[in-house]
Amino acid sequence: MEWVIFMKIAMGQLNVIAGNMAKNVENMLSMIQKAKEEKADIIVFGELCVPGYLLCDKWLDANFVETAMSYNEVLLEASEGIGIVWGNVSTLDNLVGRDGRASRLNTAFFAYNKQWVKRENNLFDGEYIKCLNPDYRIFDDSRYFLSGLEIAKKLNIEDKEMTSPFILEKDGRTYKIGLQICEDLWSGDYQFNPTEQYVNNNCDFIINISSSPWTINKELGRHKQIKKHAANGFIPFIYVNNVGMQNSSKTVVVFDGDSSIYDANGNCISNCNDEFKQELKIVELGEINLTPKCEDKLLKALLCAIREWDQQVFGSRFKWIIGLSGGLDSSVNAALLSLALGGERVIGLNMATKYNSNTTIGNAHKIANACGIDIRDGIIQKLVEEQIECLKQYTKLEISEFSIENIQARIRGSILGAISQVENAVIINNGNKVEGALGYATLYGDTIGCLAPLQDLTKVQLFELSHSINKLCGKEVVPYNLLPEIQGDEIKWEMPPSAELKNNQLDPMKWFYHDEIISRMTEYPGFGIEKLMQQYLDKSIYDTDLGKWIKYYGLDDPKKFIEDLEWILSKFELGVFKRLQTPPIVMVSRGSFGSDFRENQVKYQRSNAYIALKEAILHEN
Amino acid sequence: MEWVIFMKIAMGQLNVIAGNMAKNVENMLSMIQKAKEEKADIIVFGELCVPGYLLCDKWLDANFVETAMSYNEVLLEASEGIGIVWGNVSTLDNLVGRDGRASRLNTAFFAYNKQWVKRENNLFDGEYIKCLNPDYRIFDDSRYFLSGLEIAKKLNIEDKEMTSPFILEKDGRTYKIGLQICEDLWSGDYQFNPTEQYVNNNCDFIINISSSPWTINKELGRHKQIKKHAANGFIPFIYVNNVGMQNSSKTVVVFDGDSSIYDANGNCISNCNDEFKQELKIVELGEINLTPKCEDKLLKALLCAIREWDQQVFGSRFKWIIGLSGGLDSSVNAALLSLALGGERVIGLNMATKYNSNTTIGNAHKIANACGIDIRDGIIQKLVEEQIECLKQYTKLEISEFSIENIQARIRGSILGAISQVENAVIINNGNKVEGALGYATLYGDTIGCLAPLQDLTKVQLFELSHSINKLCGKEVVPYNLLPEIQGDEIKWEMPPSAELKNNQLDPMKWFYHDEIISRMTEYPGFGIEKLMQQYLDKSIYDTDLGKWIKYYGLDDPKKFIEDLEWILSKFELGVFKRLQTPPIVMVSRGSFGSDFRENQVKYQRSNAYIALKEAILHEN
Repeated sequence: MEWVIFMKIAMGQLNVIAGNMAKNVENMLSMIQKAKEEKADIIVFGELCVPGYLLCDKWLDANFVETAMSYNEVLLEASEGIGIVWGNVSTLDNLVGRDGRASRLNTAFFAYNKQWVKRENNLFDGEYIKCLNPDYRIFDDSRYFLSGLEIAKKLNIEDKEMTSPFILEKDGRTYKIGLQICEDLWSGDYQFNPTEQYVNNNCDFIINISSSPWTINKELGRHKQIKKHAANGFIPFIYVNNVGMQNSSKTVVVFDGDSSIYDANGNCISNCNDEFKQELKIVELGEINLTPKCEDKLLKALLCAIREWDQQVFGSRFKWIIGLSGGLDSSVNAALLSLALGGERVIGLNMATKYNSNTTIGNAHKIANACGIDIRDGIIQKLVEEQIECLKQYTKLEISEFSIENIQARIRGSILGAISQVENAVIINNGNKVEGALGYATLYGDTIGCLAPLQDLTKVQLFELSHSINKLCGKEVVPYNLLPEIQGDEIKWEMPPSAELKNNQLDPMKWFYHDEIISRMTEYPGFGIEKLMQQYLDKSIYDTDLGKWIKYYGLDDPKKFIEDLEWILSKFELGVFKRLQTPPIVMVSRGSFGSDFRENQVKYQRSNAYIALKEAILHEN
Repeated sequence: MEWVIFMKIAMGQLNVIAGNMAKNVENMLSMIQKAKEEKADIIVFGELCVPGYLLCDKWLDANFVETAMSYNEVLLEASEGIGIVWGNVSTLDNLVGRDGRASRLNTAFFAYNKQWVKRENNLFDGEYIKCLNPDYRIFDDSRYFLSGLEIAKKLNIEDKEMTSPFILEKDGRTYKIGLQICEDLWSGDYQFNPTEQYVNNNCDFIINISSSPWTINKELGRHKQIKKHAANGFIPFIYVNNVGMQNSSKTVVVFDGDSSIYDANGNCISNCNDEFKQELKIVELGEINLTPKCEDKLLKALLCAIREWDQQVFGSRFKWIIGLSGGLDSSVNAALLSLALGGERVIGLNMATKYNSNTTIGNAHKIANACGIDIRDGIIQKLVEEQIECLKQYTKLEISEFSIENIQARIRGSILGAISQVENAVIINNGNKVEGALGYATLYGDTIGCLAPLQDLTKVQLFELSHSINKLCGKEVVPYNLLPEIQGDEIKWEMPPSAELKNNQLDPMKWFYHDEIISRMTEYPGFGIEKLMQQYLDKSIYDTDLGKWIKYYGLDDPKKFIEDLEWILSKFELGVFKRLQTPPIVMVSRGSFGSDFRENQVKYQRSNAYIALKEAILHEN
């Protein structure tokens, strides 16, 4: 297929600051100015780039919504000589949402020469209303917005009237352009296909404005989806995404950008960076202009989350405090903090009891030195003993060894809290996803903090991340003695993971194996236990990576396999109590605890399938 | 209008245990048995009574859903000689939801004589699919269920086909019955009215099965809604609700029951108890059979929440620990715990520093004695001093008085944590809504616990609740010296609220005034600041209760009014960091922090209206 549209497109890949319309619009205006200077025909910004996307119930504040909408006039005014497409909220007069409040619509605006660009059917000139509202994972669109399809129903018009093309008359040419918003591209599970509509309407091209969160391997999905559409006849497709960080109560979301232009065969021919960085890229439609994909994307995602959190939530006015034990999780977090903010913004506390080894304390110093972190040593043993004394006022029962483990953790939490206040700092949370899943942490001890960058990463992913960090830094930052080596079917550890809360304590996790189970339980489609059992029963599990670990840990004995599984399930279920009280987690997987994978405290009856499979496994020969 | 239907109806007001189908169905079967013995024609249970309603993302577990559905066969089997209406999840083969998983439908089932009851249009015999899916407050129906209207669209049939009547042939008579589910009654803000459809279809009566949470004054709403429908022509209406407690991650929800039968004029002629208690009530249709409404409903709601939480989440196997300072919040909580569970299940800890007065310590003992609680005294002053010593290892900066206040609170948290472990107990959280809103609490100090029964109550509501408690107990349980007396325009305190973390410390809240502001900010429709400012500006505020407090606190000075407002807003915004990490809250208002009023950490730009009103107020003469 030949490229026949001549047009210069500016992709405005914006670092959207949720809730700050003034700043976002200022930022947009400066990109618009630049695009005009470079003679772009159209500049495109992402979904809801004016107010931000993840605003939780602030969407229900009518005065806030009205204020966000007031910026549409500013942008209309700025459209002299250039077409501008942007995302903002809109309302329809006299129309209420299903919550009884004034209607809110997730809208793409299109202005040119201070006029709203007309639509072929003259309905909703200058405005496209998002038709497909996602309500899964972190998305709650139906809570906040009426969809274009609901509007069609209210107005008693056909759905397809909502995808009437925009008619842009510019420099003596007429363009038919289709606008859509994010999920509209992902129409597979809906009853309406906005992409197909525009293709059938003989549009010249489609513009999709998105606010599409990044998670591991997500970009592959979009390319596949475009190809799927392209297989049924297609037209050029311009996708513009935001960058930066937004949060949805318990989940911190990053946006990678990766704005792209696809040709009518569904091939990506031009793109912005996917490094989570703002960029204005101006290209001729049809021009091949590819930016190389970023490496170590997970690392970049975490750095983006920390940097933006520090700026947006705290205005960068606090130091960051980290409990630096010398174990893997705190080492990785220390490296992330210093890479994102500079070591001089970080204070590390080593809070030793009699159980902490010289090796880990040495590790803590090694990492602090490598990162330029101010590390401060101290001993908390006396406080532990004093607290045990104090407790005797309140109980006649014995303070068990297990209780004393938790006392140590809570005293550390309490010291971190106090020092953070004295030093005008905030605390980072060091937990990983396997610990979180199994509740292997002391509530108000090591679960504290303002942000949990690692809580959506399994330990195995932390091993990989450590190598990325050392690679990026060009030196040993995360100590190699904390990382296992896989030799054949064996795991070699110099220092296997330990909480060091008693002598010779080792973490009870079956690393590599449990990591995978936790992923299967939480990541889309999730709830993978019965499937795992089925694979175990029919032995197909041995065709997967898990087979190796099942043998390694002796779980090829069915009794042991079931025993371990029930241990995981019971820990997982109890752990939700703690998970509900932990800090916001940076989402990197397709099932992050918090606003993504949403849990409550209920003792769920086991499924019939589980009971049958358990029976079958235990009685197989 | 004359009553012409002869039928004996059993209202099965069930205490639904979320996630426990076996138990719920066992409970239903025993009610069915009793209803058969009493020759009832139909027994009706509430919405999703088999699996429960608030299951969070457990709904996405296909094996769980299949297991829930397997109980439909059991209930079908039980329908010999009696019509049974119940709520459960269903799926449609080969149909996926918008999350790409197998479809899930919130369904009312209707069986009689082991057959599915036919529908007039022969579509969906025995099954009614909820048409109106709420997506506000704690409700996330679109996340979990396809609505009847979406199904109609998929099947390409008209919406009204989804409300085709059920045709019950029984004892030689034919009945036309309309089934609907909860929100279907509240059709005002939707584009489809299932109630009207059934009325127009000449049904004999409508059955609405609900899982309708209780909040203060909620019952008035339903009566009004029924009257609204009745104004346009109506038929008898049977409403059956569940009772008990379910939780949605951060929010604990209670269900009051109050199942009711309305005549064709919309008058309630029969009802079950609204005391949150299970009940099987069998009545002749048309019979007037009213149960008196319960008194002190708020108190009963909180007792239900604690009792059910203790049983469902913990299997009643733990004691409960409470930090008993002798202040109002802990006194009320102590009374609630002992009323719900018995004083012998409760351990109170008094953890005094040099700042705690003999009066409050005396109060703590008074309340403990009144409730039969084991109170244990101790001094934590030494631990405070030891911690300050320990901190000097980590910082050269001065440990301010403010830091020391928080250190005390965190040490108390840490002791509660340790003692709870040693004594096999869980901790109750004592915070109230005003503290929560303003972040007036130490994170990991007094914000800890497994359940926060008071965090959705303002201090003013706690005063009222205290009187209810003392009335119910017939004696002074909550010490009267903690409760203010309003004398004319003055508040008289024997002991004004204090955290007792330094000498002569008083809480900075403007009680009665701030309580109301917080309610206006959070309770539906919420975000009431601009409206308040408007009322202040046009003086209509002095026609409300707030006028009195504005004068009392000297806020009739516009500068002081604005100063105070900005203090509230800034504290409210900062406080979200703490609120996200607090325990689940029992919802009693129309805007409870957590899964009801959903917040994130964003610095929201002030609205244009706010800026204009502030300007106008400051410059009024």
